[in-house]
This record gives sequence, C-alpha cells and structure tokens, in this order.
Amino acid sequence: MRKINIAILGCGIVGTGVAKLLMDKQKVLESKIGASLNLKYVADLDTQTDRGIKFREGVFISDAAKAIDDPEIDIVVELIGGKNVAKDFILRALKNGKHVVTANKALIAEYGNTIVRTAATNSVDFAFEASVGGCMPVIKTIRESLVANRINSITGILNGTCNYILTKISQEGCPFDVALKEAQAKGYAEADPFLDIEGHDSAHKLSIVTALAYGMEINIKDIHVEGISRITPMDIEFAREFGYTIKLLAISKNNTDKVEARVHPTMIPTTHPLAHVHGSMNAVTINADATGETMLYGAGAGMMPTASAVLSDITDIARNIMVSSQNETSSATSRRRVPILGFQDSNITQIPIMPVTEINTCYYIRLAAVDRPGVLSKITGILGDRSISIQSVHQKGRRYNGPVSIVMITHVAIEKDVQLALKEIANLDVIPEEPVVIRIEDDITA
Amino acid sequence: MRKINIAILGCGIVGTGVAKLLMDKQKVLESKIGASLNLKYVADLDTQTDRGIKFREGVFISDAAKAIDDPEIDIVVELIGGKNVAKDFILRALKNGKHVVTANKALIAEYGNTIVRTAATNSVDFAFEASVGGCMPVIKTIRESLVANRINSITGILNGTCNYILTKISQEGCPFDVALKEAQAKGYAEADPFLDIEGHDSAHKLSIVTALAYGMEINIKDIHVEGISRITPMDIEFAREFGYTIKLLAISKNNTDKVEARVHPTMIPTTHPLAHVHGSMNAVTINADATGETMLYGAGAGMMPTASAVLSDITDIARNIMVSSQNETSSATSRRRVPILGFQDSNITQIPIMPVTEINTCYYIRLAAVDRPGVLSKITGILGDRSISIQSVHQKGRRYNGPVSIVMITHVAIEKDVQLALKEIANLDVIPEEPVVIRIEDDITA
Repeated sequence: MRKINIAILGCGIVGTGVAKLLMDKQKVLESKIGASLNLKYVADLDTQTDRGIKFREGVFISDAAKAIDDPEIDIVVELIGGKNVAKDFILRALKNGKHVVTANKALIAEYGNTIVRTAATNSVDFAFEASVGGCMPVIKTIRESLVANRINSITGILNGTCNYILTKISQEGCPFDVALKEAQAKGYAEADPFLDIEGHDSAHKLSIVTALAYGMEINIKDIHVEGISRITPMDIEFAREFGYTIKLLAISKNNTDKVEARVHPTMIPTTHPLAHVHGSMNAVTINADATGETMLYGAGAGMMPTASAVLSDITDIARNIMVSSQNETSSATSRRRVPILGFQDSNITQIPIMPVTEINTCYYIRLAAVDRPGVLSKITGILGDRSISIQSVHQKGRRYNGPVSIVMITHVAIEKDVQLALKEIANLDVIPEEPVVIRIEDDITA
Repeated sequence: MRKINIAILGCGIVGTGVAKLLMDKQKVLESKIGASLNLKYVADLDTQTDRGIKFREGVFISDAAKAIDDPEIDIVVELIGGKNVAKDFILRALKNGKHVVTANKALIAEYGNTIVRTAATNSVDFAFEASVGGCMPVIKTIRESLVANRINSITGILNGTCNYILTKISQEGCPFDVALKEAQAKGYAEADPFLDIEGHDSAHKLSIVTALAYGMEINIKDIHVEGISRITPMDIEFAREFGYTIKLLAISKNNTDKVEARVHPTMIPTTHPLAHVHGSMNAVTINADATGETMLYGAGAGMMPTASAVLSDITDIARNIMVSSQNETSSATSRRRVPILGFQDSNITQIPIMPVTEINTCYYIRLAAVDRPGVLSKITGILGDRSISIQSVHQKGRRYNGPVSIVMITHVAIEKDVQLALKEIANLDVIPEEPVVIRIEDDITA
C-alpha cells in the first residue's frame, strides 16, 4: 500500500490530537483512503513532557528542520501557532515541495496571500479547514459544495469563548468579568483572552471566509472589529424584551463591487437559528443565490474537533496524491485539485471592504438620561435631523437613584449618521454616560 | 481550456435547475475549476414545453440513448426520477465509461449496491450529494470532513413536507388533513404524498447515510418506518407540556456489530437545535467520536437548492478529471478519488439493522380511558410487570363527554416490552381506543 509521509510541527494540544488520530485511526483511514498515512515525525522543542502517546523510535524529534527538509515527507502539518517561526517553516516546506496543512488563522489572516502565492509557485497545496470553525466544514462547504452559488453573505458565531461568556451573562445575569473568569476556569478562555474577547480571533476567521466566498485576497486590516467586554446583563435583558439575542457575530456581505466585513456584538431575532447556539459552540450561516440559507453548527475549538478538521485536509491531499500518481511511475507529489482561495489564482481580485461608517442597518441605542421634561424630544430631534427614524422607544423605570434608561430601536440608518447623532447626544448635559450602541441584523433569514 | 461534456437526462424541475446553473454560471465555474463545463445534451421525452431556457441548436433532444452513447460525454446526470428507466440509463452510462451524478434516492435505496459495483467494475464515479438533504453537504461531510471519526449516530429531519406539516400543526393547532392540504397548495407536498408523509422518502435517505457512515451496504428493507399521519394537535400540545417537540426523525445509531436505523415521529427536547428547524427546512445532526455533535441545516428540496448539490458533484468529478489527466496526452476519464460508499469497496461489510423491537428508548404513551376508579393502577400494573417504569404521568381533564386522557412518559425500556404491555392494555375494557405511542430521543445532545 502506498505510504504517505507526514510531519507534525508543534505537539501542543492540537498537534497531540492530530498525532493521536493518525495513530489510533490508521486502519480505518487506510480503508477509506487506500493509502497509509505514516506519521514520520512529530517535532517540538519540548520532547520531555508526556503527551500520552507512545511514538515509535525516531518519530518525536526537537528539530523541525529535519522534518521539513526530509525528501520523503509529503505533508507538513504546522501546529506551532504564532506567526514568525510558523511562517518561516511553512514557506520553507512549500519551497521544498511539501503540501502544508495548518490551523493557524492569525498567520493566514496576516500572511495568507504570500503563502498562497508561494504554494502556487511550487505547485503544492496549502490547506486550512481547521482554521475556521473547528470541526465544521466551513471551508469545504464554501469551496466545494456551494461552488455554483453566488454567496450573498456569511454570518458566523466563530469564537467559542465569547459565545460561552454571552450565554452565561444571558442565562444567569452575571456581569462580564464573572463570566470571563468562569470561561477561564473551564479552559475555554486563554490566560490572556484579549484576542478572543476583543473580536480579533473572529476577525482572523472572517478574513479567510470572506476571501474564499467572493474570490478576493485575504484582507484583515480593513475589517471593523469590536469585542464583547462592554456588554452588560442590562443590554441583554432589554434585547430580550425587544425579541432579540446578543451574539458576537462575524458578518460578511457581498455588495459586488464592495464587501462588508465586520465583527461586533449584534442583536439577532430570538427566532433565528443562530440565537439558539449556546455555550462554546460555533455556527455559520451562509446565504447564497441557489441554496438560500444553510447553516453549519459544531465545536469550534478543542483538541479532537480541531484535529478532525486537520485530518480532513490531510486526507484530501492524500487522495489527490493517490489520484494523480496512480498510473505514474514517478513522484510523491499530487497536483492541486481545488484552488486554495476557491477561485483560480488569476481570478482572485482585490475587492475593497467598506468602511463601517458606510453600512446600513438598524441600531439599538441605550442612553442614561437625567429624568427631566423635554429630554426625549431633544434626543429624538437630534436623531430626526440626521434622518434616523425610531421603530420603538422605551423609557425604563429607574433602578437606582440616578438617571433613567432610554432604550431605542431605529429603522435602517447609515452608520455615519448614527455616529454623528450619538456624538451630539453624548454632549448634552442631560446625558451623563456614554451611549451604548448595538447593531441589529434583522434581515438574516433562516 | 479543457472542455468537460455533460448530458442531463430528464428536464423536469431539478433538471431545468441544473441546466440553468450550468449555463448561467459558466464563467464563474470556469474560474473555480479551470475547465469548461459544456452542457452538450439535455434529453427529455417532452421537448415541447418551454423551460425558460434558450438551448443551443442540438442540445435539447428527446433520445437519451444518443447522449449516453456519445463517446464525447464525460458525465451523465440522471434526473428522470423513478426506478426502471433511470436504472437502465445509469447502468448503461457507467458501462460506457461515463461518470454518473443523480439525485434519485429511491433508486439508490433499492439498487445502490448494484450501481456501486457497476461503477467500480468500470472505474468510473457515481455521485449523489443531491439525494440526501438537498443543498446540505451531508454526503461530503460524512465521506470527507469526518473521515477520521467513528460516527456514533445520525439524526435527521430529512423530509420538508413532513416538517412543514408538523410545524403547521404545532403552530396553529390545525388537524393533520388541513396541514397536508396547505402543504400541497404551497407545492411542498406531491399530489400523491404517500412516500413523504408515510416516512418512506426519509427512509430512502437514511439508508444512504447509514451505509456511508458505518461502511456497510445500502439496506432499505430492514429500516423501520412510521409516518406522521396519526399525529394529532393534542399529542403535540401534550409533548410541549413535557418540554418536547415532535419531529419526523430519521435515526441511525452505530452499535458496532448492529445498527439502528428507523424513521418515525419522535419527541425531542425543545432545547435541542433540531426542535428549532421549522417549515420545509431540513437538518441533520451527526455525533462522532472526535467532533462531538455537528449539525447541518438547509433547504432539503426545491429546484435550485437541489441543483446546487448536483453541481457540487459535477464539479468534484470535473476536478478529478483535471487532476488525473493534467499531464497525460490521453483520456477523458478521471480516476475515482473518494470511495463511493466512503470506504474502499473491499471494506464494505453487511452490518445487520436491529429489529425495532430490540431498541431501548423512552416512550410517550397516551391512552383514552374510561374514567373509573382503579384504571390507572391496572395500567401501571401491566407496565410494571414488564419492567417498564414511569417517569411522569398526567391525567388530563376530559374535553368532551367521554373517556379521559392518560399521558405517560416512561423511563428507558425495551420496545418489545412496551409493545406487549400496550397490547395487553388495549385489551382492557376500560380502554376504548388504540393507545398512541411516540418514541422519545432524550440523549441527542447538542
């Protein structure tokens, strides 16, 4: 049986999971692929800590270069994380004619275009299903299943830590800090949770699916990003009264000559399937012209779900190798079967991402206002001057001896106008606190 | 650019959709595949009715054999439906060395094993993503994304007509017949809705995913099937009071040496994501060892969603042709890349499907009983004698001048015992009507 040699770089949580699957599932993988996936190397600087795996002699090594430069290796799996070392290893592997698999979304978001070009130049594959949505087949669905569709929009809950925290606040009414501590205690949140809770991890993932969906280069720098650290139990409660749930959404919309791509806390109708995605689970809805709305749901992180996605990439490449070398006396290499970014390289364009100030949507606005006659008319006057009309307004009884809460839902308005109006409102002497604004997505249907 | 020649057999709803996509999306498909998908023939006995498509001269023909026997054709797409003609055309195409794509679940359920063997003998591919769940990538996810997983169970809402009817009864409290008429008026239900509402369409689909998931031959004849025609607004209302929703589920469980495969109305917790799948939408949850629970959700039928799935199969085959013929002077044919049933042919076994009498689950039982002292103790006595213990029992106030409703939820019991106990209960002279039994799935987690 044809042997396909694999090297894993980085034996942390996901690396360990991939090694386990390759060893435990060897027989069944052979019966599905018709080739043997041979784990030739696992390289990690720390070869002392017990990973609970009994590697064969010579497999567990500390020198990644030995694996990357070994002519027998067909597939290099980068699971080191971070950007510098990982990038160097990936580029070196590609230049050595190895196919590369990774789960490293931060790296792809920043250096993906360079990596894709290097893979093309060297006629090898670069695969990254595990970088978005863990075990959910987001990338395969976009590149393969929806191939005949124009994708209109993608809306995702792509960070389990944030979704866990929002679920916790929503179900128990606890403040953000308490929910975050619990997420850390349960192992969902990193010791430094900045990338997660400030939305950057979701943005990395959004930059990848946005490129794949519309045939454009990866562009992380123009994605608007807001995190969940300012979300309060009070806003979640008010949202519920209006029939909404608050989720950290990664939103991408295809406006043909421009694209929307943004990550922020969002109010969605409680009847929408995404509103029922609880805890650390992830989900993505994809709206496309032929299919209408489809949704994928699953574990977005964790050792084995992520390892499962890495294995699907390894298997794809192994199957490509088998198909393209079946009748040839030659070579280890396969030809690239599915274009890395979904479209042939020559069809990848640079579609600009709209500034967030240009988007059109509805808004939830909460103001703390001094309880005085005429305040509401002053506020609505400012909004009206900017053509922002109100769907619904509630003045909430005061909970303590201070300002009252005024909560409003607007009709569709232009973000720029909303920002200018709120700046003006915040300057009123009857508004002692910064207004809270949460965007609403009403038009995601499912 | 390499041209890949396609023939569509059958220009009904789905055939028309596939032709439309191939023509409307030609450019974008080229930019994703690097080959040109050329619709050479559309064959249908009726070439007179306007399909709203302007075919090139010579494309729209009435003689399918001309397409099947044309040496230039690479891929034959069977969308005639039914079993006899469709089967003959598919086998003839495979023997002619054509790859075949179909959406015909009834045909695959009955003749799939023969077709798979014929495809193997002739070294061509047979693809059927559109046969299960419309545009949801169920088959691709099982065969490719979850390749390194042991699949534990698959639970699906696989028939949009039934889900539409159950949603309607649930939301409006109307009786089954009224909901069915509305489904027909809206075009969801066929004029003869038997295959849909009696569960056979779901069973066809379940036979396919069960084979793919566990590496076994397709077996439709041993699947237990019950439809929804006996579901009443009353049972839906009682289910809700217990925290359940009633859905027609296709359930498949991997018990290693045996498999469960059954289609029947099922009560699931209202907190489960499947409980939020409304109207004509479909969804499938897959529980696997590495990934845990994943779910796919989307339009399970309809012209364009189904056509989208057919196009994903056509594209897969086209990409295989490109990969395997890139450097060859030869031939139209590709090598088969993913085994048709997920496992290499030699690894496909015959795992038996358990008789439904052997399953273990919880049950909802509704009895109409004459309101007389001692009735309840008689009933619970019979259940107790068969080791069936009760989780919860409610005696419902009488709605009319007749028997009262006794509603019970059992703990886990063996189906055979429940059937025997109910037979005995039905024979009591205080039980004037046939008992209603609905199985409960409590252990599907998501």
